[in-house]
Amino acid sequence: MTLRDILAERPAARPKIPAAIESLRTVFGERIVTGEDVRRAHAHTTTYIPNQAPDAVIFAECEAEVQRIVGICAANETPIIPFGVGSSLEGHVNAPQGGISIDLSRMDRVLAVHAEDLDCVVEPGVTREALNAHLRDTGLFFPIDPGANASLGGMAATRASGTNAVRYGTMRDNVIALNAVMADGRLIRTARRAKKTSAGYDLTRLLVGSEGTLGVITSLTLKLYGIPEQILSGVCPFPSVRDAVNTVIQTVQTGIPVARIELLDAQSMQAANAYAKLDLKPQPSLFVEFHGSPASVAEQAEMFGILAAENGAGALEASNRAEERSRLWKARHDMYWASMQLRPGSRAIATDVCVPVSRLADCIGETQEDLQASGLIGPIIGHVGDGNFHVTLLLDMDAANEIEAAEAFLTRLAERAVAMDGTCTGEHGVGQGKRGYLHGELGAAVEVMQAVKTALDPHGIMNPGKIFLT
Amino acid sequence: MTLRDILAERPAARPKIPAAIESLRTVFGERIVTGEDVRRAHAHTTTYIPNQAPDAVIFAECEAEVQRIVGICAANETPIIPFGVGSSLEGHVNAPQGGISIDLSRMDRVLAVHAEDLDCVVEPGVTREALNAHLRDTGLFFPIDPGANASLGGMAATRASGTNAVRYGTMRDNVIALNAVMADGRLIRTARRAKKTSAGYDLTRLLVGSEGTLGVITSLTLKLYGIPEQILSGVCPFPSVRDAVNTVIQTVQTGIPVARIELLDAQSMQAANAYAKLDLKPQPSLFVEFHGSPASVAEQAEMFGILAAENGAGALEASNRAEERSRLWKARHDMYWASMQLRPGSRAIATDVCVPVSRLADCIGETQEDLQASGLIGPIIGHVGDGNFHVTLLLDMDAANEIEAAEAFLTRLAERAVAMDGTCTGEHGVGQGKRGYLHGELGAAVEVMQAVKTALDPHGIMNPGKIFLT
Repeated sequence: MTLRDILAERPAARPKIPAAIESLRTVFGERIVTGEDVRRAHAHTTTYIPNQAPDAVIFAECEAEVQRIVGICAANETPIIPFGVGSSLEGHVNAPQGGISIDLSRMDRVLAVHAEDLDCVVEPGVTREALNAHLRDTGLFFPIDPGANASLGGMAATRASGTNAVRYGTMRDNVIALNAVMADGRLIRTARRAKKTSAGYDLTRLLVGSEGTLGVITSLTLKLYGIPEQILSGVCPFPSVRDAVNTVIQTVQTGIPVARIELLDAQSMQAANAYAKLDLKPQPSLFVEFHGSPASVAEQAEMFGILAAENGAGALEASNRAEERSRLWKARHDMYWASMQLRPGSRAIATDVCVPVSRLADCIGETQEDLQASGLIGPIIGHVGDGNFHVTLLLDMDAANEIEAAEAFLTRLAERAVAMDGTCTGEHGVGQGKRGYLHGELGAAVEVMQAVKTALDPHGIMNPGKIFLT
Repeated sequence: MTLRDILAERPAARPKIPAAIESLRTVFGERIVTGEDVRRAHAHTTTYIPNQAPDAVIFAECEAEVQRIVGICAANETPIIPFGVGSSLEGHVNAPQGGISIDLSRMDRVLAVHAEDLDCVVEPGVTREALNAHLRDTGLFFPIDPGANASLGGMAATRASGTNAVRYGTMRDNVIALNAVMADGRLIRTARRAKKTSAGYDLTRLLVGSEGTLGVITSLTLKLYGIPEQILSGVCPFPSVRDAVNTVIQTVQTGIPVARIELLDAQSMQAANAYAKLDLKPQPSLFVEFHGSPASVAEQAEMFGILAAENGAGALEASNRAEERSRLWKARHDMYWASMQLRPGSRAIATDVCVPVSRLADCIGETQEDLQASGLIGPIIGHVGDGNFHVTLLLDMDAANEIEAAEAFLTRLAERAVAMDGTCTGEHGVGQGKRGYLHGELGAAVEVMQAVKTALDPHGIMNPGKIFLT
């Protein structure tokens, strides 16, 4: 979808929105807000996708309130847009048909920690950092780390993952059960707390990644893990992206249980050096991390070092000291900001695709050539253990031809990934931005998704204008 | 559901079944079979649930044929029951409304092995043993092992798991994508081959565990793993079930990446000794297996040994020799047959429940007391790392009061598991037998499942009479 496409959409008329707002005000008083600043802050703000503000924002404080809000909106065929912290990247929190943004950030309680079962129950507004702070004294942690301090409800809704999915999986793998309020106001619990179940359809996984289009998540039961006895992190420079990717393939295939394995291309390394005041080699590099017992971590690092050397790598510079590790991963996590410094004054659009790892070097190579031919600046970083990578395009929003070139590039990138049997999005979700690619990737399966959507939300009030082209 | 309930059901009339058979015969000739022996062999045969034969069995040889068959059945509102090898335990392959059993065992080709990507593509009739035989020279394997040499399509349909799910997950975690023919004859592919995706609803996970009620699986893309450099298996006797379970909790929490950890109660150990001519201590025991490098395996076994000893265990008798390991796991896998020898001439019904592991010792303890109070024989074995266990009831089918006692026991067992925040089935599925427990476990979520079912199969032709009470 180009900017123009999104702005030109003519969505369904929603005449009863004012009536919904009036009813909500009767119940919630000052907790429903219609001021422009608050409304705009609850629409999309993180990329160059336009800001489409809702008609009102309501701050929910508990599950029963969410149920009440959805009930009122349903009675008035008024769109509902769930909002966590607004860190999503594909326009998920925009309100192209107007409606009510439900801000869930006040639902931020950790409801239970079951240490023996390695699980916890949280409200959707708990952020991943807040959860890990809460867990600090238990010896447990929640690993999924998309970079931003996202809300766990939002992470489930977009099927988020990030740097350590290669070891711990994505939100798909780490949500045991959900509570959700469906479009008709019905509250459901998708599963009980057993680690596995064969009892009926997997509604947990149906809601994870549904981007708020089927229901509003009101609590999450999540898997936890013991904090590893030892953690070793390091950086390793390679002659080329292909050499780095070959090392990744061999690492995974050898069964080294690497916890993180991240690629930064040469341009990203330059940006990281400048932004984080580091002195790393400006070559394609892998940032790696190993978790386990001291003996296991040492063995993993040694085996990785051998594979890397066989692929022409420089020495692995590694440390198990917490401050060194933090410095390294902060540099990685700050890549969005570091990249923007490559072109001061630009706006960034961070996109993601994911391919089978055997095609990753080809996909990145062709993408780099495409960037060069298009005259675009776009450093590349990737969760390469999963075949997932990001291009962060840095754009001058006043140059119409540059926006046009960028949009053509994004379409080619999505099509390239799909042609390699991959996906137009590995972890950001479809939102508004990638709706145009979904049919090319999944064909008739999209119609099955739409049949499910229509069955569960016949009036199209749950986050309309996302995932599917209207 | 009692036997009587299942037999007393009055399902929808299906007057056009003869027309469907006639149409199918025109296209498939002798590959549609209506002889009683073949029909009965394609209905339920593995427990005491009644055999409800289909009207005909058709042997499909490729995806296009499945599409043709479903199209003809859809046009005649004729039930379709997918059939792999018939090893399911809850009546999934029965035909309570008559109709056509699609035997997929001739669709047994491994279509691709992508060693670099650690995945493969198979037809649904490939069994797990056949796949692993095919992979023998690649250094890779497919780990999920429900005991029986089940078909991979059937394993996906019931969301199967088994002994090493504690390390490798269940079918939920190991299916990357599916091809499926839906109720209207439409062929879909649920995802591409990338390791992760955020592109739309997770139709892969919606079909995994749907027990043939939404579509017929026609191919599966599965995750593979490198065969571990070393495998060490062993047995360890404990003073009590609770001591064994506490050791399991501590093992998982310490982060020991145990590959299998199976509980056998004292009665099961006696049965195993008698059947497999072993000389193991007749105490509650854990069968364990460790995978990894030699150093890692040694470390895992040592750490496990320390935890076990702290819980009063006898010595861990372990071996990394292939024949010793095979003998041990064969004894475990043969428990169904070994248990039946505890009462020659009996019929067995193997049930499963799954609870949070913190409640496992309570759940097993109360279940053992219940068995004793009910005068029933039911050895217990379990995939205890997941909180999942089986009771194999050994019944005299001529004793009506015993059947009645067994059915009351099964209901109490399911309710006990649910009351402990667990599930009435961890891996066998709902089928016919557990439909009565689903609403008690999941409440309004069952109505959401039914809305999905109705949207995707409005005439109820896909494996009717399973999962949901009609």
